[in-house]
Amino acid sequence: MVKTEFKDLRAVFINCTLTKSPAKSHTELLIEASQQIMKKHGVQTKLIRAVDHDIASGVYPDMTKKGWDKDAWPELFKDIAKADILVLAGPIWLGDNSSEMKKVIERLYASSGELNEKGQWLYYGKVGGCLITGNEDGIKHCAMNILYSLQHIGYTIPPQADAGWIGEVGPGASYGDKLEDGKRAGLDNDFTNRNTTFMTWNLMHMAKLLKDNGGIPGEGNLRQAWDNGNHFDFENPEYRS
Amino acid sequence: MVKTEFKDLRAVFINCTLTKSPAKSHTELLIEASQQIMKKHGVQTKLIRAVDHDIASGVYPDMTKKGWDKDAWPELFKDIAKADILVLAGPIWLGDNSSEMKKVIERLYASSGELNEKGQWLYYGKVGGCLITGNEDGIKHCAMNILYSLQHIGYTIPPQADAGWIGEVGPGASYGDKLEDGKRAGLDNDFTNRNTTFMTWNLMHMAKLLKDNGGIPGEGNLRQAWDNGNHFDFENPEYRS
Amino acid sequence: MVKTEFKDLRAVFINCTLTKSPAKSHTELLIEASQQIMKKHGVQTKLIRAVDHDIASGVYPDMTKKGWDKDAWPELFKDIAKADILVLAGPIWLGDNSSEMKKVIERLYASSGELNEKGQWLYYGKVGGCLITGNEDGIKHCAMNILYSLQHIGYTIPPQADAGWIGEVGPGASYGDKLEDGKRAGLDNDFTNRNTTFMTWNLMHMAKLLKDNGGIPGEGNLRQAWDNGNHFDFENPEYRS
Amino acid sequence: MVKTEFKDLRAVFINCTLTKSPAKSHTELLIEASQQIMKKHGVQTKLIRAVDHDIASGVYPDMTKKGWDKDAWPELFKDIAKADILVLAGPIWLGDNSSEMKKVIERLYASSGELNEKGQWLYYGKVGGCLITGNEDGIKHCAMNILYSLQHIGYTIPPQADAGWIGEVGPGASYGDKLEDGKRAGLDNDFTNRNTTFMTWNLMHMAKLLKDNGGIPGEGNLRQAWDNGNHFDFENPEYRS
Repeated sequence: MVKTEFKDLRAVFINCTLTKSPAKSHTELLIEASQQIMKKHGVQTKLIRAVDHDIASGVYPDMTKKGWDKDAWPELFKDIAKADILVLAGPIWLGDNSSEMKKVIERLYASSGELNEKGQWLYYGKVGGCLITGNEDGIKHCAMNILYSLQHIGYTIPPQADAGWIGEVGPGASYGDKLEDGKRAGLDNDFTNRNTTFMTWNLMHMAKLLKDNGGIPGEGNLRQAWDNGNHFDFENPEYRS
Repeated sequence: MVKTEFKDLRAVFINCTLTKSPAKSHTELLIEASQQIMKKHGVQTKLIRAVDHDIASGVYPDMTKKGWDKDAWPELFKDIAKADILVLAGPIWLGDNSSEMKKVIERLYASSGELNEKGQWLYYGKVGGCLITGNEDGIKHCAMNILYSLQHIGYTIPPQADAGWIGEVGPGASYGDKLEDGKRAGLDNDFTNRNTTFMTWNLMHMAKLLKDNGGIPGEGNLRQAWDNGNHFDFENPEYRS
Repeated sequence: MVKTEFKDLRAVFINCTLTKSPAKSHTELLIEASQQIMKKHGVQTKLIRAVDHDIASGVYPDMTKKGWDKDAWPELFKDIAKADILVLAGPIWLGDNSSEMKKVIERLYASSGELNEKGQWLYYGKVGGCLITGNEDGIKHCAMNILYSLQHIGYTIPPQADAGWIGEVGPGASYGDKLEDGKRAGLDNDFTNRNTTFMTWNLMHMAKLLKDNGGIPGEGNLRQAWDNGNHFDFENPEYRS
Repeated sequence: MVKTEFKDLRAVFINCTLTKSPAKSHTELLIEASQQIMKKHGVQTKLIRAVDHDIASGVYPDMTKKGWDKDAWPELFKDIAKADILVLAGPIWLGDNSSEMKKVIERLYASSGELNEKGQWLYYGKVGGCLITGNEDGIKHCAMNILYSLQHIGYTIPPQADAGWIGEVGPGASYGDKLEDGKRAGLDNDFTNRNTTFMTWNLMHMAKLLKDNGGIPGEGNLRQAWDNGNHFDFENPEYRS
């Protein structure tokens, strides 16, 4: 039975795996765990696998205006702009985020100068989180960068907005791989499951809280007001005292 | 005139400079810019310069129980536990956070397993931000780590919760230093001033929003409930089929 | 007059700008400063602008074998495999490396399991460095990741193998941009110029030192020998004493 | 039997655990694995546990001149200055280096402006590596920062100069902890053992190579020559045309 307490919320998950469909993405398995909790509570969700689309590189909203033949981003961005929740998910390579993750962040950044109806930057009032899988090391390093980027462009980051799975250092199974004993790597990891759950709920709670309260109040964070000289009680320390 | 809309809020700023009082801390100048906005709006604020106190190293709440002669942390922590807003501030050395910053984060982490009255981790319902100054490089790198650590232990990070000042690459003036032309480095940097202001307001808005709504709802993020088998609609992907 | 002391060396510079040719890349200007020192001393150099080529995403040497229509990497890699010196250069976006940089590192990683004639990994005996430009923040953060990745796959990193330029925090001119006073941003920055020069010379010295000494001696670092049970005097601490 | 091929080399290992002696440090167990390979080959080694000493915080060579009562660093630094090899080792907390590690790096940085007899910075000709242990995540993140810092102040980083151990994500045994089955966590991890061995040998090879060749040649990397106007063939791109 689908519950309805979060039914006015929309969420987008972007999978930044380097692997094109239909090949299997380990990260997608973890995304699904989060996505299905949201679905059960009425959140409208959408999953995008970035590498399946011709997303151009660059820091402009539409790269076809900058000499690229194709750019799937403007169309994909429509859903992101409507979503209350954005979860960026991806693998770890050499301890860092994938190039697809960086491309997606660059494209999100491209629209970060636009303003919402209050005059705040576009992403104000939205919440962000991340999911990371790898076979041995780097969840926190990757999450640090993703969550920083999201808050920097206007997303709110609720408590414990990152989760992931990695195994013991060294080569080994990836998330969900069949092991010799018939089990599947990581799927029984209580820490990963709990953190994924807590992240998902905290994203829903915070998105709901912001939605029900009309977002972040529009004072002290308005770009044009600042540019017009309203400095919201900021005083230059030089002239104090 | 002090305004009163945020008068039920408390904020703690921790300055993680390596410089002991009474010597001047460049970072403190930027802290004051944020702190005075809060004060004008009725927030009760407190500033701690970590290096002035005998804070032990370690990951336990009270290191005198682990063989250290002295530990100023338990006393300092009382204010942190009461505060709705925590701003960690510090300098950049070799492009990274100071050792005092890392020590403070380790000590915050030491209490991260405690629970609040709802059964959420202790820092749930509080908000965090950071201020960084250096002479040439590294605000984002430092902020990434600080904000990640804060959200990981339970703080909410509102939009654009980091601000700072750095000059052009290479040796040069630090924030607030007198320049040859009589000006003071960084104090007129519109970007630094705006970001400091926006951060301050976003911290106040989010802290107020959380306070007025009773914090983050206690569902889907309760440690003991999870341990007791309530998995809040999480389903292991393995068994979904 | 071209000097000849380094004439047996080859260097490849990869520019990881997001900007396609013929549009101008700020990073390229700094690359040229390093490249021309090498040229004057007889090093054979090559400059690749990654975004101009159809380089596939992935962690395999040739992605056309993994379902991609095109992949320019295998051809580009021939020069990299021959080069004694590799300099990865790029811009900063949101404080981090560009997606093109990450893609290049992923592709370098793809060949990191291959062995040289001694039985060491392929990149042993080669040296690496990096050049970063941005308008305000992040040289060290970007360099940290690049140099780590290079040493992790087998490159030697000589002293001070990173250089770059950034201006004061906030929006502003990029490297080489014309300023109001007719000067060009960063070009007179003594620190950037010195570090670029020192990096270049240290790369040449170290590459020459390794070349003249037959690379890194093949003992204690041979993959197949290890797998065959030669543990080069490693003893498990468990069984010591 | 002690071999003698590296008998003119000295190595210092600094353990940046937060745990004071005599309590056990997990990191120290891994240090010993590297140290004993060096010893067998005649390298003179020394192990320092930073937290056991009253090392002041700061970025000056002797902090007693900056208002600190005590500072153990100047005495400890004598061995570091003599050593050809420096290995910084430590634990992971919240995915990052310990505060002790940052303090040690700050103090190394404090002497980075001194020059050697050639006029190069002090650490030129020395080699650096790192060892990291944690229970779940962050070797590469920590290593990235340490190795970057070392190369930035003048150390050479040979191939694969980092090693470490972490277990599967979530709470669990630390390196060397007794497990239920009687084994000890990590000690049989072939990847950790191999990387520790390869790192150790690469440090010895590179230190020997540099020592036998008189260090890094003193051209293109001399601070005072640069300041006096010898720019070692650097040309400002502006004037190239």
